[in-house]
Amino acid sequence: MDNIVIRKASCEDCSRLLELVRGLAEYEKAPQEVTVSLSHFVESGFGENPVWWAFVAEVDGLICGFSLYYIRYSTWKGQRIYLEDIYVEPEIRGKGIGAMLFDAVMQEGKNGNYSGMMWQALDWNQPALDFYSKYKAKLDFEWVNCSIEFKDV
Amino acid sequence: MDNIVIRKASCEDCSRLLELVRGLAEYEKAPQEVTVSLSHFVESGFGENPVWWAFVAEVDGLICGFSLYYIRYSTWKGQRIYLEDIYVEPEIRGKGIGAMLFDAVMQEGKNGNYSGMMWQALDWNQPALDFYSKYKAKLDFEWVNCSIEFKDV
Repeated sequence: MDNIVIRKASCEDCSRLLELVRGLAEYEKAPQEVTVSLSHFVESGFGENPVWWAFVAEVDGLICGFSLYYIRYSTWKGQRIYLEDIYVEPEIRGKGIGAMLFDAVMQEGKNGNYSGMMWQALDWNQPALDFYSKYKAKLDFEWVNCSIEFKDV
Repeated sequence: MDNIVIRKASCEDCSRLLELVRGLAEYEKAPQEVTVSLSHFVESGFGENPVWWAFVAEVDGLICGFSLYYIRYSTWKGQRIYLEDIYVEPEIRGKGIGAMLFDAVMQEGKNGNYSGMMWQALDWNQPALDFYSKYKAKLDFEWVNCSIEFKDV
């Protein structure tokens, strides 16, 4: 029986968290897209004005999963939780750790009086879409993600 | 010749801004999705801790367009501008007002040292996609928007 602990991330977890962010980006076939530095990551989560928060899953003392969110603003719904990342390492899946990490963020959002939670999944990531369907999440396929890097314009 | 002024939105503009938010939601075929109240809208933009900012376009003294953004967090890219809404009323299109509103947000992001800007467009909104292509924006069609309303879970 594994010893699974879900807890809030602390500053000391950042280095390991960034490893997992890279693991998730690899799964999403975009490892080259992770250009954030550890110092920016630490500063934005644990500096004077934190803009993101996270939960980590420890299994037998090792962090092997996380969920990370920020507060977004919707002109339709007001302030809402945005679940930026949720990830569990492949070798430890199937134990319900993803659900624990998801539920922890959802509970945080309910406690904070936000109206709801939003996130994105890749349209080919069927295990993720199946997982979210269990929560009766609304899935909307008609939006296109657009981006500009300021260095290019 | 119209007298076009682009300026930062002020607290007094909120009521008119929310009218335009509803106009945009109607164009996006989702008017029923706008459930935010004017008081929450005002408080979140001009209260103690503002979480959104906007530019308005005045034509002959009347606000007929706006661009609204917040700061998002990306585990891949760090802090970035998120362009939540950009809208120009139908009868005043074709004068370059959309580009002025877009450029104002982009300039704000450059000044703030953010790495880039992100937003979403509807996959059937060809005029919008064409507009963004002129900026050489990267368009990514493989993400699904997911959401949960806390009152339902």
